[in-house]
Amino acid sequence: MTRVGVIGVGHGRFGRRSDATVQELAFEAFRAAIEDSGIDRGVIDASVIGAVPEYHKQRSVAGVVQEYLDLNPKPTWLTEVACASGSAAIRTAWMAIQSGLHKVVVVIGCQKMTELSTAEILALMGRVGEVQWESVFGTTFPSYYAMFANRHMHEFGTTREQLLQVAIKNHHYGAMNPNALFRKEITMEKALASEPVASPFCVYDCCANADGAACIILADEERAAEQGDRVVWLDGVGCATASMSVLRRPHLVGLPSAQEAAHQAYEMAGVGAADVDVAEVHDCFTIAEIMAYEDLGFCARGEGGPFIEEKRSYIGGDVAVNVDGGLKAKGHPIGATGVSMAYEIVTQLRGDAGDRQVPDAAVGLTHNVGGIGQYTFVNLFRRD
Amino acid sequence: MTRVGVIGVGHGRFGRRSDATVQELAFEAFRAAIEDSGIDRGVIDASVIGAVPEYHKQRSVAGVVQEYLDLNPKPTWLTEVACASGSAAIRTAWMAIQSGLHKVVVVIGCQKMTELSTAEILALMGRVGEVQWESVFGTTFPSYYAMFANRHMHEFGTTREQLLQVAIKNHHYGAMNPNALFRKEITMEKALASEPVASPFCVYDCCANADGAACIILADEERAAEQGDRVVWLDGVGCATASMSVLRRPHLVGLPSAQEAAHQAYEMAGVGAADVDVAEVHDCFTIAEIMAYEDLGFCARGEGGPFIEEKRSYIGGDVAVNVDGGLKAKGHPIGATGVSMAYEIVTQLRGDAGDRQVPDAAVGLTHNVGGIGQYTFVNLFRRD
Repeated sequence: MTRVGVIGVGHGRFGRRSDATVQELAFEAFRAAIEDSGIDRGVIDASVIGAVPEYHKQRSVAGVVQEYLDLNPKPTWLTEVACASGSAAIRTAWMAIQSGLHKVVVVIGCQKMTELSTAEILALMGRVGEVQWESVFGTTFPSYYAMFANRHMHEFGTTREQLLQVAIKNHHYGAMNPNALFRKEITMEKALASEPVASPFCVYDCCANADGAACIILADEERAAEQGDRVVWLDGVGCATASMSVLRRPHLVGLPSAQEAAHQAYEMAGVGAADVDVAEVHDCFTIAEIMAYEDLGFCARGEGGPFIEEKRSYIGGDVAVNVDGGLKAKGHPIGATGVSMAYEIVTQLRGDAGDRQVPDAAVGLTHNVGGIGQYTFVNLFRRD
Repeated sequence: MTRVGVIGVGHGRFGRRSDATVQELAFEAFRAAIEDSGIDRGVIDASVIGAVPEYHKQRSVAGVVQEYLDLNPKPTWLTEVACASGSAAIRTAWMAIQSGLHKVVVVIGCQKMTELSTAEILALMGRVGEVQWESVFGTTFPSYYAMFANRHMHEFGTTREQLLQVAIKNHHYGAMNPNALFRKEITMEKALASEPVASPFCVYDCCANADGAACIILADEERAAEQGDRVVWLDGVGCATASMSVLRRPHLVGLPSAQEAAHQAYEMAGVGAADVDVAEVHDCFTIAEIMAYEDLGFCARGEGGPFIEEKRSYIGGDVAVNVDGGLKAKGHPIGATGVSMAYEIVTQLRGDAGDRQVPDAAVGLTHNVGGIGQYTFVNLFRRD
């Protein structure tokens, strides 16, 4: 195998973007990535689009984006695995280049969410759980993750305050991120007093739906090397699955798919959990980040609560996690999130992250979960 | 590059399948493919699912299929490009193997359509055209293709009878296909007298919505070679795009994306149009098959009408086209269609097609169109 490198990244503002169609959001991120890469758009061989089409009025999302980016007649197609759709697009583009079929592939994660009401979104998301035997009983995304949280609290003594410390950290860093939906610090007092959602969660345990897009451009080893020390290598691509129904999982205190995907990515890149300097993990709910610490091997099972309490996932701790605000403060445009994570890691490994720069970051990881853990994609990025 | 081979194929019955969920449809095709290949399912590295999720009650289609096939924790993800979603899955699996990441990849195209009413389906399909500037004016799939037909008739003198001869041929062969939705011959008299849909089309110009699934298993060169003379090689993978809006196309008498995708596939496989013995083309409407003859180079532009009239696309003619019944008679479960096409070509190249066998078929082609031609995927298959 050769190596695949990231040669350009771009990111738009996440939030309620009634000012822009999905193709306009995609273009915003694409233009930034093209400028960042310095390439001529004529060298682009193909694009892969990560999105979940059913939230859009416009279907055929790949087609509408491809045309708006003026990339016809080059190939494009869309990948969908719920909230991990962007990472599936990255994996696909990596394969396209590694296969020798293409040399330069644009990956765009883009999503409109706010065309639908919150009730419509909740109904659609519930159907990402198993429709036949489980979600018919009224399960929603918050209720699934609330079960994980309750079990974690029961088994390991994880506390409400530890959960909310995840939110406090992510809002702290989100306040420094110009692309984030929520750019404000929050306090424990305010978080504890926020409206209940699904016990034990209150509003500040939950990420917010958003519109948004992010873009990365991947290239083969030869072209990537032309970028000199700006290039960031995508050296490990892990992907694993688990049962749709949580009732068929071995336990509820972590995601088996995440453990397996991390194992694959670490092995492929030849690094371990202790080597990771900066990570973007899928904090759709506060408990999700705590489980991610454990699933990724940043700490042992059950120790995620103390891990955040001791600020070991802050900059200066063991590993800096979600220092762009995470899904929690940045917002979660589901198809865009995986690519947004990659954007942040590349920015960090290049040393371009400004106020929220992780010193000497050399190894970065993204952890992107689809559904309630039926898919997890873990990607490992390195600079030489 | 090495070669990628098809080592197993399976196909379920297309039609109104209220007896089966989407995962059960997928399993039906998967089980047949596993048995056909003779492999142990333990060697499967990953699956790629072609489907259009918004027609299903169950979202997260890849996850629910992966679990039902007992393939957890192996990777899976879904590809979507409207009616070409199955071919995008094949392309993705080809890249996965060619990249060296995986050795054996299962491709499943699966689709439930009949959970929705025809009106709901038409509304959803209309949104595959451009929502912002075009489909708001009420365009539907039949009306788009009716425009193509009217223009072709105007420019080249193509006749109503020539259009319907496509339907007559495809029903003729569909009657021999146990998996087809419509297993009956039709006459010109009956076809001409059928209900009008969108001028010039009547019912027999249009394919039918259906539920269904098909499966092919791809493997790397080494494992594929173990199948001896049963292996069929996927030697060319073409994919191209064109504008969403038909108003921005250079003409309305063919699909620019199909011409470009065919060019790529021919070049990659080192064959030309004259070498193709058997082809599966995207006859969602009768005019679509006539345009495909021309776009693929089986005849010159404008000669598609006489081409079918002279039975040059029957078995024994220049190239046997849609001898499984095509979308027209077999039915069109949109995510499954591209994989179903590959199933038929592999069956033909192996000499296993029974009554509808094309003698000495050695080179086969699939032509799968997404939307109204915003994407076309052309794949070239060969036996040694």
